[in-house]
Amino acid sequence: MAYRTPVADMVFTLKHVAGLNDMIAEGAYPDLSDDLVDAVMQEAGRFNTEEVAPLLSHSDVHGCKLEEGQVTTPPGWAALYRAWIEGGWNSLTGPEEFGGQELPLQMASAAMDVWNQGCMAFALGPTLTMGAVEALDKHATPELKAKYLEKLVTGEWMGTMNLTEPGCGSDLSGMRTKAQAVGDGTYKITGQKIFITYGDHDLTDNIVHMVLARLPDAPAGTRGISLFLVPKFLVNDDGTLGARNDVEAVGLEHKLGIHASATCTMSYGDNGGAIGWLVGEENRGLACMFTMMNNARLMVGIQGVGVAERAFQMARDYALDRNQGQSVGAPKGGAMEAIIVHPDVRRMLMTMRTLTEVIRSISYRCAHAIDRTNAAIASGNNEEAKHWGERAGILTPIAKSFSTDTGTDVASLGIQVHGGMGFIEETGAAQLLRDSRIASIYEGTNGIQAIDLVTRKLPLSGGTAIKEMLIEMGGWTAKASQSEDETLAMIGSEMNESVEDLNFTTEWLLAALKAGRMEQALAGATPFQRLFGLTLGGVLLIKGAIIAQELGDPSAEKRLAMARFFATNLAPETAALMDTVVNGADAALDSDKVLAAE
Amino acid sequence: MAYRTPVADMVFTLKHVAGLNDMIAEGAYPDLSDDLVDAVMQEAGRFNTEEVAPLLSHSDVHGCKLEEGQVTTPPGWAALYRAWIEGGWNSLTGPEEFGGQELPLQMASAAMDVWNQGCMAFALGPTLTMGAVEALDKHATPELKAKYLEKLVTGEWMGTMNLTEPGCGSDLSGMRTKAQAVGDGTYKITGQKIFITYGDHDLTDNIVHMVLARLPDAPAGTRGISLFLVPKFLVNDDGTLGARNDVEAVGLEHKLGIHASATCTMSYGDNGGAIGWLVGEENRGLACMFTMMNNARLMVGIQGVGVAERAFQMARDYALDRNQGQSVGAPKGGAMEAIIVHPDVRRMLMTMRTLTEVIRSISYRCAHAIDRTNAAIASGNNEEAKHWGERAGILTPIAKSFSTDTGTDVASLGIQVHGGMGFIEETGAAQLLRDSRIASIYEGTNGIQAIDLVTRKLPLSGGTAIKEMLIEMGGWTAKASQSEDETLAMIGSEMNESVEDLNFTTEWLLAALKAGRMEQALAGATPFQRLFGLTLGGVLLIKGAIIAQELGDPSAEKRLAMARFFATNLAPETAALMDTVVNGADAALDSDKVLAAE
Repeated sequence: MAYRTPVADMVFTLKHVAGLNDMIAEGAYPDLSDDLVDAVMQEAGRFNTEEVAPLLSHSDVHGCKLEEGQVTTPPGWAALYRAWIEGGWNSLTGPEEFGGQELPLQMASAAMDVWNQGCMAFALGPTLTMGAVEALDKHATPELKAKYLEKLVTGEWMGTMNLTEPGCGSDLSGMRTKAQAVGDGTYKITGQKIFITYGDHDLTDNIVHMVLARLPDAPAGTRGISLFLVPKFLVNDDGTLGARNDVEAVGLEHKLGIHASATCTMSYGDNGGAIGWLVGEENRGLACMFTMMNNARLMVGIQGVGVAERAFQMARDYALDRNQGQSVGAPKGGAMEAIIVHPDVRRMLMTMRTLTEVIRSISYRCAHAIDRTNAAIASGNNEEAKHWGERAGILTPIAKSFSTDTGTDVASLGIQVHGGMGFIEETGAAQLLRDSRIASIYEGTNGIQAIDLVTRKLPLSGGTAIKEMLIEMGGWTAKASQSEDETLAMIGSEMNESVEDLNFTTEWLLAALKAGRMEQALAGATPFQRLFGLTLGGVLLIKGAIIAQELGDPSAEKRLAMARFFATNLAPETAALMDTVVNGADAALDSDKVLAAE
Repeated sequence: MAYRTPVADMVFTLKHVAGLNDMIAEGAYPDLSDDLVDAVMQEAGRFNTEEVAPLLSHSDVHGCKLEEGQVTTPPGWAALYRAWIEGGWNSLTGPEEFGGQELPLQMASAAMDVWNQGCMAFALGPTLTMGAVEALDKHATPELKAKYLEKLVTGEWMGTMNLTEPGCGSDLSGMRTKAQAVGDGTYKITGQKIFITYGDHDLTDNIVHMVLARLPDAPAGTRGISLFLVPKFLVNDDGTLGARNDVEAVGLEHKLGIHASATCTMSYGDNGGAIGWLVGEENRGLACMFTMMNNARLMVGIQGVGVAERAFQMARDYALDRNQGQSVGAPKGGAMEAIIVHPDVRRMLMTMRTLTEVIRSISYRCAHAIDRTNAAIASGNNEEAKHWGERAGILTPIAKSFSTDTGTDVASLGIQVHGGMGFIEETGAAQLLRDSRIASIYEGTNGIQAIDLVTRKLPLSGGTAIKEMLIEMGGWTAKASQSEDETLAMIGSEMNESVEDLNFTTEWLLAALKAGRMEQALAGATPFQRLFGLTLGGVLLIKGAIIAQELGDPSAEKRLAMARFFATNLAPETAALMDTVVNGADAALDSDKVLAAE
């Protein structure tokens, strides 16, 4: 059986679990109808199943090559990208003024889920462009917008983010790349950036680099960093391409996965300085960059979702096809049966499928909170904007970290289902593990996400923001546990224990922060983040099961079975995570002797 | 800081946690002294640190090549192997009559831990040879032994195991390779075998293939399989090499990891039939093969231990070296500090180091049970032999599965500690994940180990064998919890909860088996296996901490800190696993709707 984009499942989650349909019903998107959502998603699914997904292995085998400063992508890649932007897929969220469709981020997220199922290395590039569009739209001058934004919105050109330097990754305070005002409104940029995703390629005629650098008089640390737009080719006033700018890819990383995504070392100013334009105010570059990074974190989380879906389908199809052994109770010496009959294989596949639905739900729900925030800002409702902004702030690190860790776990289970074939590269299962592994690292490692969650997001509105979420989660588990459906009632009561675990742990962390026990709180940040993801995920499965039942949706029984599996097989871990956070911090910090070299 | 074999830590675990010193004290090994153990292990450590470990990345980059039926290994590999066998490292456990040193399997296990730290792909080959030695020693005719055994014991020649065929992996009943008696005591072997580790290479002049095949009159299924010795080159009566046999490597797999270990497709009899000799009785080949596989399972478990140790050291050294951010409470804007100051990094490293000690302890303890069994058999003590044989039977699937799953988890954490550098192949962290991933699959997937544990090992002696283990574990937690040392007492009482979880789950599974609820028992097999590994591992950490304290060993504080970290941060998972086994089976089996294609 060949891979197919599971459009119906995704659309249900988008409309009913994330909440897009409520927003449509409330009139937040006058141009968007229920049917249009279906049509867009079906076409995305078709394009992906037919055009993107078949190139997955090809892209890994060919990878990218760097010769004389120019990166070439795998054969067929440029044509695929061209067809993809002609389908309008790059412009889903961009501003209408510059050719965008201004669709909700929820739809862009579901579409990104689709492309990541097809090929994560392909889907990654447009994520960066999307970030560049947001930063320019919010912070650039009208002149810069006029010159660059439409090309980026349509995907005619692509964007990059240039933060990292050899001595400066998670901590940007040590940044050394320099910018010097020329006097004509431009700047000369000199320095070296590393790990630049899609830093160079042959998919588009031009590439728009968003580069962080220091002005000569800038304060030390992160308050002295400015953001610059540095195009690969200068752009004439009529929009045609001019001279090549003084920026070049000088190195290409040899990576574990996503081989078709060029990770470049970029050299700026080897011949006097690359010409750049300031975006936003001087020394406020970090704030501008965070505009780019925030949604990028969600998009990285969605990479985990897409890879998990592909890994699940690959493993499920193999398990249906591969005969080995017999089912329990079959007559001895009878024919071998498909390995999907074995309980342990079913456990693995149930885990893969259910976790995929969980991280999809969390990620779409995060996009929903961002859409709500934007809608509230647009309508001038400050209270709503604050509420949903905080909600989005809490959900973003969870969507990023839990989805990416889970994506890798699911990909690894996919290898296991394949047995020996899983270790053979041609099978494709191993590539999904190799590809997905980066997602827990880039756009802020998952450890950094956990620090953000505990130290900045938990305390929002004095802890009220997170407590409101807990109350909502408790509402769903209560509704389930009061159901006349015995299975649903059991699920509700099991998941309610997880909500209580999360509640207790949240209170403990808030108290630790208040008491200044920062190291203890930080020691529990990663297990807390996972506890949050598991609990929220189980609650969203309940939500999906209840709504599917109410609507008589064909997925109702499936969603109930997933919620049941999750509640009884995966959710019990929450109690252990609570224990770890609450009782384990001091032992985790008492590490000097254990970590000393022999 | 460069990697170094942690000999002192390993020797303590070997002597005191596994129990080698007790056996030496009891006189089980008259030629072995406490000092000799130290000397052997120190020399192994030196050879590994200086000779094997530096070739790790080199072996991955070069890999193996197949040209005209001949596999070549990476440059330098053959010289390394030659030096290694000249050091006597291949002959540690072989029979004295054929040049072996007859050292305990515990020492061979610790040595194998050493070589796997150096390079898993290198350590893997001799594991197969070791299996061939055991099978021939137990089952071959005196003539075959005289011709082959000494060369295999010294490592002058290497051995292979040929089981798998395209349609026949975990289930060997469908095997098709044929053997036909020639009439002169030899057999003609024809057929194709896949996934043959070290199937061909240039390390030795000859390779001795142990091949499963069917005789013409053999019963169907696994009771009709016989074992044959098939040399790459025929051996003359004077021991010199004769004609090339009709066996050839015709394919080489392109794998996720262990690139320097050639995984071959072997073709037997393309030109009339490869000449082979029967080993053991006709149609009893599977029993002979299990002689090879049993210890091989432990050796695969030890691959997880070795890789975990290397991954830990690599990550720890990086965390000491890489400056990024500041510690809690440091003055703002001060210098960046090594990332090991961050609580989340310390948690990762503590997890890596503690889990490495756990799986080392379990694996050495498994070797100890096998040594006890062999000693009891040698001294004719049937009761002891039965007791320790059952103990070894229980420990083997746990040592195999828990150590390999954990090895991969630790390797993946190692990538995470490295941040973006972890995804770059040259760093080396990614290779450890790629290498280790196969260990959960080969020599019986970890799912197969779990089935073995639950359906064959749990019921040994009516469940008494496993209950005796639980009582012993409870003895250690009781001793700890009664200690005057408050920390130790807390650890004992925490770990005792895990022992109770394991106890309850064991009883539940035994009852399910008795009631014929086989599918339910099998659905919980994998979580039960992990529950067993975690509980036993925590208890062995306690044992190590108590004995180190009693002996005033310099590792005492470190071992206590590890036991504390484990008890409060990792052991809480056991309650969740109990829940999953006891309450989750029906939901895991209710998979039809969830796993159906959209």
